[in-house]
Amino acid sequence: MAELSVHSVLVTGANRGLGLGFVQHFLRMPKPPQWIFATCRDPKGQRARLQCIGPAETADPASIKAAAAKVEEHLGGSGLNLLINNAGMAKPKTLEEETLEDLTETYTTNTVGPLLMGQAFLPLLKKAAQGSPGSGLSCSKAAIVNISSIAGSITSFIGWESVQCVSYRCSKAALNMLSKCQSLAYKEHGILCVALHPGWVQTDMGSSAGQVPPLTVDDSVQGMLKVLSSLSEKNTGAYLDWEGNVILW
Amino acid sequence: MAELSVHSVLVTGANRGLGLGFVQHFLRMPKPPQWIFATCRDPKGQRARLQCIGPAETADPASIKAAAAKVEEHLGGSGLNLLINNAGMAKPKTLEEETLEDLTETYTTNTVGPLLMGQAFLPLLKKAAQGSPGSGLSCSKAAIVNISSIAGSITSFIGWESVQCVSYRCSKAALNMLSKCQSLAYKEHGILCVALHPGWVQTDMGSSAGQVPPLTVDDSVQGMLKVLSSLSEKNTGAYLDWEGNVILW
Ligand SMILES: NC(=O)c1ccc[n+]([C@@H]2O[C@H](COP(=O)([O-])OP(=O)(O)OC[C@H]3O[C@@H](n4cnc5c(N)ncnc54)[C@H](OP(=O)(O)O)[C@@H]3O)[C@@H](O)[C@H]2O)c1
Ligand SMILES: NC(=O)c1ccc[n+]([C@@H]2O[C@H](COP(=O)([O-])OP(=O)(O)OC[C@H]3O[C@@H](n4cnc5c(N)ncnc54)[C@H](OP(=O)(O)O)[C@@H]3O)[C@@H](O)[C@H]2O)c1
Repeated sequence: MAELSVHSVLVTGANRGLGLGFVQHFLRMPKPPQWIFATCRDPKGQRARLQCIGPAETADPASIKAAAAKVEEHLGGSGLNLLINNAGMAKPKTLEEETLEDLTETYTTNTVGPLLMGQAFLPLLKKAAQGSPGSGLSCSKAAIVNISSIAGSITSFIGWESVQCVSYRCSKAALNMLSKCQSLAYKEHGILCVALHPGWVQTDMGSSAGQVPPLTVDDSVQGMLKVLSSLSEKNTGAYLDWEGNVILW
Repeated sequence: MAELSVHSVLVTGANRGLGLGFVQHFLRMPKPPQWIFATCRDPKGQRARLQCIGPAETADPASIKAAAAKVEEHLGGSGLNLLINNAGMAKPKTLEEETLEDLTETYTTNTVGPLLMGQAFLPLLKKAAQGSPGSGLSCSKAAIVNISSIAGSITSFIGWESVQCVSYRCSKAALNMLSKCQSLAYKEHGILCVALHPGWVQTDMGSSAGQVPPLTVDDSVQGMLKVLSSLSEKNTGAYLDWEGNVILW
């Protein structure tokens, strides 16, 4: 299996957790991307362990458009190969504790954000697809990767006893639907789309339940990058975990 | 199979379409419910073909709480057997046309509304379950019925060529996840929860694509009521169509 080889990549929520892990792995590749765009909400924030290209509140249309314009400027005529919609949030509440505000915020961040990012970066993704040799889809050519969660699977419903997180579960089920829709809408443009479950990982979010998750950020990101490098046309619209296993919706 | 026999039922979005059909069927039953609560946004509106108990914007917490208080008052000490979350909306847009505002409005109406309704009517549903004889779950005892759509199924993904409606698909996938969560959270209280697909029906929404849908409101509602009458404990959390067929998530 060839290593993932891209000219440019953008990762959202890149200041910590899995987003930061993605950026570090890209930097360490034998053939690193020429452009790694890392976005985060607060580039100067206390929790930021990386200087990002600029603020990007993932669900604010104006902020997203500004980020797309900046990226286009840097790329100077070439396209964007890989968009990793990683930014996400969860509030550990029970069903009875959920409020309109939390439901809306979680949906906006986890579902609407990736949709708007896809819209805004579509021209650059198309350009990357057109500029890449060969037919068929691949992540080295042009792809949208939505970092979902197994918590969004209704079929493989898990973990209810430890965390209810209904707003999170609903937002990730909806993100899975979005991935499927994006795969159908963007196939003709040569863009592969997938939803990935990173596993249960040692990040702020993963550790918020009080237990130590089994996977390190390195394990998870390495696994996901290997999976991405193996994807082809037949995998567009899939829902896979960090080891490449298919998850039922 | 026994006919559905309930003391009280509440239907949202009851001024037209399937909601109105439910109310009419309940009224025509040999043993009609003693209480039929019909809610709609605009009880005096032009499109209203039924006088409702009062305004209930399904995703406005204050409006929902007021409706629950009113219902409690009418019921004078007895519980609510059946909550039918029927109100819903769809905007026929392509993926590229979707906006933050439409996505939020659709999610708020189709997903958040049913969640808040469940929270607000929980005490009355519990009361109905406690007041009903026998163990096990049933719609005659206490149930939440979420009117979903096959458009919320990622596995049985259909109709993309005629309508993209990404905001609608995402909201119904999320509603399916909510139904599953409600079934787990409310089982201990004796409340059955299901997601139903009414079929493709001749209503304003069903006809909005310009073609005539195959099912009349009567066919669909009659089918759904038959399905509801047949449900027991083992069906809680299910996703079924108007004929009782299981739909994959
Ligand atoms: N860790 C796990 O076990 C696990 C399991 C399944 C799925 N996931 C998914 O993996 C992704 C990354 O999670 P993580 O574990 O790395 O979580 P994390 O350590 O909590 O990091 C979350 C990242 O998302 C950003 N973010 C949150 N809301 C945002 C918004 N409105 N706009 C822009 N950025 C926002 C955060 O930025 P700030 O620093 O500004 O808050 C941060 O960079 C998420 O989509 C999550 O759902 C994680
Ligand atoms: N018809 C079909 O083929 C079909 C197929 C699959 C699923 N469904 C589902 O079936 C349910 C009923 O649809 P229908 O076909 O009867 O549609 P409809 O004729 O368009 O009626 C929709 C109803 O929902 C109400 N509503 C919409 N937004 C609301 C809000 N924010 N607050 C309160 N009420 C609101 C409407 O009230 P107003 O009059 O005030 O707008 C109306 O009463 C929906 O959940 C729909 O998704 C329908």
